Amino acid sequence: MKRWLLLSSIAALLVSLGGCHHAVKSEKCAEKIWGTASLIVVCEREAGRIMVIDSVSHELLGRVGGLGNLRHGVMTFSRDGRYAFVIARDGTLSKVDLIRLNLEKQVKVGENSIGLAISRDSKYIMVANYAPGGVVIVKTDNLEKVKEIQAVREMENGTKQVSRTVGPLDTPENLMIFGLMEGNGVWIVDMKQEGFPVIKKFWDVGDTPYDQLISPDGRHYMVGLLNSPWVGSLDLWKMDEVKKIDMTERRAGVAKEYEKTAIYHIPHLESWAVSGDLAFVPAIGERRIIVYNTKDWKFIKSIPIAGTPLFVVAKPGGREVWVDNVDAPGSEAERLLQVIDVETLEVKKTIDVGAGAIDPQFTPKGEALYMSVREEGKVVVYDTDTYKKIKEIPAEKPSGIFCTDRAVKFGL
Amino acid sequence: MKRWLLLSSIAALLVSLGGCHHAVKSEKCAEKIWGTASLIVVCEREAGRIMVIDSVSHELLGRVGGLGNLRHGVMTFSRDGRYAFVIARDGTLSKVDLIRLNLEKQVKVGENSIGLAISRDSKYIMVANYAPGGVVIVKTDNLEKVKEIQAVREMENGTKQVSRTVGPLDTPENLMIFGLMEGNGVWIVDMKQEGFPVIKKFWDVGDTPYDQLISPDGRHYMVGLLNSPWVGSLDLWKMDEVKKIDMTERRAGVAKEYEKTAIYHIPHLESWAVSGDLAFVPAIGERRIIVYNTKDWKFIKSIPIAGTPLFVVAKPGGREVWVDNVDAPGSEAERLLQVIDVETLEVKKTIDVGAGAIDPQFTPKGEALYMSVREEGKVVVYDTDTYKKIKEIPAEKPSGIFCTDRAVKFGL
Repeated sequence: MKRWLLLSSIAALLVSLGGCHHAVKSEKCAEKIWGTASLIVVCEREAGRIMVIDSVSHELLGRVGGLGNLRHGVMTFSRDGRYAFVIARDGTLSKVDLIRLNLEKQVKVGENSIGLAISRDSKYIMVANYAPGGVVIVKTDNLEKVKEIQAVREMENGTKQVSRTVGPLDTPENLMIFGLMEGNGVWIVDMKQEGFPVIKKFWDVGDTPYDQLISPDGRHYMVGLLNSPWVGSLDLWKMDEVKKIDMTERRAGVAKEYEKTAIYHIPHLESWAVSGDLAFVPAIGERRIIVYNTKDWKFIKSIPIAGTPLFVVAKPGGREVWVDNVDAPGSEAERLLQVIDVETLEVKKTIDVGAGAIDPQFTPKGEALYMSVREEGKVVVYDTDTYKKIKEIPAEKPSGIFCTDRAVKFGL
Repeated sequence: MKRWLLLSSIAALLVSLGGCHHAVKSEKCAEKIWGTASLIVVCEREAGRIMVIDSVSHELLGRVGGLGNLRHGVMTFSRDGRYAFVIARDGTLSKVDLIRLNLEKQVKVGENSIGLAISRDSKYIMVANYAPGGVVIVKTDNLEKVKEIQAVREMENGTKQVSRTVGPLDTPENLMIFGLMEGNGVWIVDMKQEGFPVIKKFWDVGDTPYDQLISPDGRHYMVGLLNSPWVGSLDLWKMDEVKKIDMTERRAGVAKEYEKTAIYHIPHLESWAVSGDLAFVPAIGERRIIVYNTKDWKFIKSIPIAGTPLFVVAKPGGREVWVDNVDAPGSEAERLLQVIDVETLEVKKTIDVGAGAIDPQFTPKGEALYMSVREEGKVVVYDTDTYKKIKEIPAEKPSGIFCTDRAVKFGL
């Protein structure tokens, strides 16, 4: 309040001294600012732009463009939520100010990039590259490159296997973990130590790691494998071995949802839904969600859905799991959002959202859900109590949706 | 410091009237803004002020005063983290802008207030009052009072028992829950419905509810009781009954930590530490932490500590539990912060923080811990990897510490 009094004094002085009053006031006061704890940020894929949305009022605050090819564009946030670090498929890394809505800094960190994560202390970003492979570490303040780590496996015949990498993710001990696709490995980098050494290299975790996650409590790391019928699991307190959790289960007859279908998208592991002791896992290339008990990884149930799952997300509070459906372009299934009741493990609601509806994401307390409707050029918002659409925001080929509350969570 | 900057600006303007444009520009650019996802806010008790601190750089961003009597001052945050709603003991409710650092609005909501919470949709605040009792609901945009709910129990003899209330907390279904101290009850208000009806009244949950919490997954509500040897537990999916969880346990001999001591502070339930399936519960008036298994509430272990516990907090990632110690003014114990190893359930580290060291609070990813050293006029920051102090910030009788990441969590 004192500041405003002082500003009024400045304004008053300026008026009496020559009439700059209006200019000062509008300059100073016109700047609309907002808190950054729960902004929704949406990628507009072909446009290379992001949209910044207030998750309470659902108002579009603005856009920032020039971010490169955002096909599979992903982002992580500074710990105060002010900056989004966006990695484009073409290796362009951008630091975007989510209040002033400008591009603060941009660098090239690879030829083909797939993911990134921010260190526990918010000081470094690690980017995983398909090309040239390996990972790159940059400082968050100026995006200056401080380290490159080549992901190479020395084979028994003496050749060197250069790997594409996937991930990374950060842990409570300030480690960064990433997978080596061709190397079938998982590496751990200590972000606390000078020079960012690789402190662990796990080999032969399975055939082709493709995505990873950390459990909500920050203790267990899991890695998904494209060509092995298990998931790798590492206890981060022990860091001793990547165990194999069997993901096959006895099939009583061949139900329709078990039939393999075309894979239009690989499901995102990061989105595995956990509610209590249940994990809701997307089956790759099958029309179903598989429910496991996380205590012993016993199979609980197969839940048939309309298409193949891409994002499987638990509503905050854990009472429902919402899932999108991927299928052939123009199909009925690719329009549908489905809601699974966690108590009955049945689909309780199916919503026709629109063509190419993907990436359901809840607001932090779950009263609303955002979704991109790629083929219909809009982002839609649902009231999760009534399952009714409450807002449409025009968008150009929208894809990934990210809430800034990721800034205070591990593994994102 | 900002005031001095502004005063210098006035001076600069007065000196060079011709340079108005430049001055305007510098005014505009001089406004320092920041993200609000992880600010640390500390109450300065007698001064009626809050301090706003950047949790990454540990820099003091500024202070806002005039907030009333902050003895047991507590706060909740708007969902975007921009505003703190601070309730003073004298019933003054303040809305403070955490970026512009000014007092946006202030109203009186009671004579003696004890707690508050924000609704799931960030639109309403509920305040619990000791005097006149009951709860008050105000709108977050302008603090306009929209509802008062009297907490009255009709006794068998026809008299009416007016209650002090404790809590409240919000749930994933947009309910608000509060306890009735004299009424021995727990009431639930539906914040979604017109008129905010009380939809459930549980009676005889135990003698004198004094604090409550919601489990990290948002499913289980628990209420602590001053004069009953159990804790009340309510499954929020079922909402059928407040079960009694026995908090006595067989004592093999009388260990020193079981001896009752003077109660200088009632422990804060909200801070119950949960790591995996273990809950670390502060014993009231005893020098120990009690460890229970949250699956069946079986007693696991009694961990002796130096004083009586006030705040018991799990480090993000769950590998350690940190606890402050309350004891007689001037005692050795009241200086100590202790670290419990979750694997061994032993105290692994004791740190002499200073006289009246209370309220350890981690930054969202746990790399640093803040603590108020009330009798030494400072807030201190520890590196949690090295257990070394990395910063001291002068403060006038600092007490409660709150991080804005509470904005995206239930029950706070």
